[in-house]
Amino acid sequence: MRKILIIGAGKSTSYLMSYLLDHAEKEQLEITVGDLYVANAQKAIGNHKHAKAITLDVFNKKNRQEAIDQVDLVISMLPARYHIEVAKDCITFGKHMVTASYVSQEMESLNQSAINKGLVFMNEIGVDPGIDHMSAMQVIDRIRDKGGKMLLFESFTGGLVAPESDNNLWNYKFTWNPRNVVVAGQGGVAEFIQEGQYKYIPYNKLFRRTEFLEVDGYGRFEAYANRNSLKYRSIYKLEDALTLYRGTMRRVGFSKAWNMFVQLGMTDDSYTMEDTMDMSYREFVNSFLPYSPSDSVELKMRHSLKIDQDDIMWDKLLELDLFNDKKKIGLKSATPAQILQKILMEKWSLAPDDKDMIVMYHKFGFELDGKKHQIDSTMVALGQDQTYTAMSKTVGLPVAIAALKILNKEITTPGVQIPITKEVYEPILKELEEHGITFKETERKYLGYNPDGVSA
Amino acid sequence: MRKILIIGAGKSTSYLMSYLLDHAEKEQLEITVGDLYVANAQKAIGNHKHAKAITLDVFNKKNRQEAIDQVDLVISMLPARYHIEVAKDCITFGKHMVTASYVSQEMESLNQSAINKGLVFMNEIGVDPGIDHMSAMQVIDRIRDKGGKMLLFESFTGGLVAPESDNNLWNYKFTWNPRNVVVAGQGGVAEFIQEGQYKYIPYNKLFRRTEFLEVDGYGRFEAYANRNSLKYRSIYKLEDALTLYRGTMRRVGFSKAWNMFVQLGMTDDSYTMEDTMDMSYREFVNSFLPYSPSDSVELKMRHSLKIDQDDIMWDKLLELDLFNDKKKIGLKSATPAQILQKILMEKWSLAPDDKDMIVMYHKFGFELDGKKHQIDSTMVALGQDQTYTAMSKTVGLPVAIAALKILNKEITTPGVQIPITKEVYEPILKELEEHGITFKETERKYLGYNPDGVSA
Repeated sequence: MRKILIIGAGKSTSYLMSYLLDHAEKEQLEITVGDLYVANAQKAIGNHKHAKAITLDVFNKKNRQEAIDQVDLVISMLPARYHIEVAKDCITFGKHMVTASYVSQEMESLNQSAINKGLVFMNEIGVDPGIDHMSAMQVIDRIRDKGGKMLLFESFTGGLVAPESDNNLWNYKFTWNPRNVVVAGQGGVAEFIQEGQYKYIPYNKLFRRTEFLEVDGYGRFEAYANRNSLKYRSIYKLEDALTLYRGTMRRVGFSKAWNMFVQLGMTDDSYTMEDTMDMSYREFVNSFLPYSPSDSVELKMRHSLKIDQDDIMWDKLLELDLFNDKKKIGLKSATPAQILQKILMEKWSLAPDDKDMIVMYHKFGFELDGKKHQIDSTMVALGQDQTYTAMSKTVGLPVAIAALKILNKEITTPGVQIPITKEVYEPILKELEEHGITFKETERKYLGYNPDGVSA
Repeated sequence: MRKILIIGAGKSTSYLMSYLLDHAEKEQLEITVGDLYVANAQKAIGNHKHAKAITLDVFNKKNRQEAIDQVDLVISMLPARYHIEVAKDCITFGKHMVTASYVSQEMESLNQSAINKGLVFMNEIGVDPGIDHMSAMQVIDRIRDKGGKMLLFESFTGGLVAPESDNNLWNYKFTWNPRNVVVAGQGGVAEFIQEGQYKYIPYNKLFRRTEFLEVDGYGRFEAYANRNSLKYRSIYKLEDALTLYRGTMRRVGFSKAWNMFVQLGMTDDSYTMEDTMDMSYREFVNSFLPYSPSDSVELKMRHSLKIDQDDIMWDKLLELDLFNDKKKIGLKSATPAQILQKILMEKWSLAPDDKDMIVMYHKFGFELDGKKHQIDSTMVALGQDQTYTAMSKTVGLPVAIAALKILNKEITTPGVQIPITKEVYEPILKELEEHGITFKETERKYLGYNPDGVSA
């Protein structure tokens, strides 16, 4: 029997669990699920005979080490900042480890120790990061194997509501951590490179500098820039590419409307407002508008945003009930971002029957045999219900598949790594296809941003 | 003989020096000027027989303590962050201290020690902070002494170029630290209270929410909000006032134009740009605009800012030579703010014959005998030349006068303090008047922001 410990039985683990439980008999797996609340863990495993649930407090060293010592591989589904103690124990006790989180500096520093002990520490193997790495590197390696030279790489992912459940004016619902959505883009300029020119987008312009993307059968999307596009230059060995851009996908119109909150200052998370417990929604809005003894909050808002009352942007605000003077914020010493999140969660939470959707879009521009080419590659995953979501599928399946392939010694290269080598991405992408996670490639005329070499 | 040590002989010390040197004979003063560069100190004192220049490295403890131990009072004209070691020595050796800087928490923590030793530690006794405190508290105390109740207090200060030297489209030149101008308003929301309502202005709206101010004989100004208006509530005992607002004055149109830089991201000081050594001014601008193979930087800029070519805002940009592709930035790993500062310093530095100007404007709204009243109080100080500037006069004279009055035991209350008590502001304001620093008061109809009690 091979033993796996899964730490954290949150809502993102449904597919991870069912994959591993489905394979437990045939693959001789013994699965332990540890959670601070054992009921969560019990719910996750049902009464499967190859699985057991335990109480696991990751901050309790003895508790943590005892659990880790008994298994062959540890999957940490905790928030990224809690991985490091688990990782150090995995080094101590000689266990493999899998996470869906970005490699932190602390995690990276364990690389040599993991190599010395022959341990695979696989990270960034969820959806974004994860499936994006694998699907991009597969195409990039294929282009290079043919002798092609990469000119352009753009990559976009969005966690959205499925078309059939898309029934508000924002074409958006929270399918993941709402806080990350509210503060998205803060904390630093968005830097990228386009046709060899470095470009910088400040936060207050981020949601106005979008790019349109068309996905076959799903219509039009838009994307705003992520902060860290240039980081992928060394990871994907794209030092010579003229264009490198990563972004987040939304339905068209979302960003322009979201920008209203940015401009008003409602997404700020850096200070707490006065008297937020008794503040009404209307007072919250009014806090960001000039004082007037007579003008209405509505008119001041439209004037500040320079929109008319028949603008769809105005309807989007009304849909959120922002001007209600009866509804209270009811939060103590809250930041604008926390208040906005509360208001949005009332309207943007998934209803019981709602389904989510993950969309991914890559563009690869390259030169081959003296000619320029472009491949666009898209993936859409749809949720089944609120347990078997597209998010939990695209995060959980790669994690589960990687874990099993490490145990089966199909993935053997030791060290702290991310899934960008053929050894890793080929078998995993192949198996993801069997679960319906497939990319559709389209060869198209090379567009780039300067097809004719014109200079401005 | 009473001995004074002045630490730091920068360009803001001209009036401070001349006041003390002028009074040295009659008041029996012996003045030591210490600077890291003794030539600066020598230049400051000329060959005055009551003064001597020394080399003083404030980071050299022995050097610093020897100098402090020999005098009765220390004036620190260093940047605020360097005061604390001097202040601790003043406690140790029992010396009074005067600075024009804001009271830091470290400085505040010396209060009890200063009281125990009977030492006056006078801070915030320049222009802003300084003359603003004194002139405001004089009127507020007078209103209260008559039984009036404060409803509104607004206070604005600007360091500007004098009308006769005001010859660029921005109506602005650097008369003080340029860096502070470039990063003004960053680092936190501007919070204030207006008619009992808390208001918050995010950085990207700060320069669009201005208030107009008319100064007799000098025309119209505008003001944008400072970050810290509410801090003055407890200092001035204005807890019950409905409106409390502090701002920075500029000539009308400056803020709207400055906002172009804010919107583009050119004032950001939080990251360094790539290749700034060889970057041209034009490339700097282009970094903040979308890529295009054919559209000009000029057209992209006008489109991004939504202005036409016959807009005066456009002329303001042209005046700065922003689109020059020959001029190089020539700074290594610079932030956008550092680059913008360099570009602006070429155009906004004072010419040899230019003169500066300090403008201050207070509004006091109050209720007295059941009626509402308003007093507006304004002050304008003009520089004589580039040595005897309005800035150095309004900063240096209060410092010098305070120092002498402490030595003469006219100001005796010990402790870490700012000039908000009658003991301090009355004699100093009186003497400032003799030097032409006078406030002009106008009684006017109470305007407030909601004279009729209308609710929105």
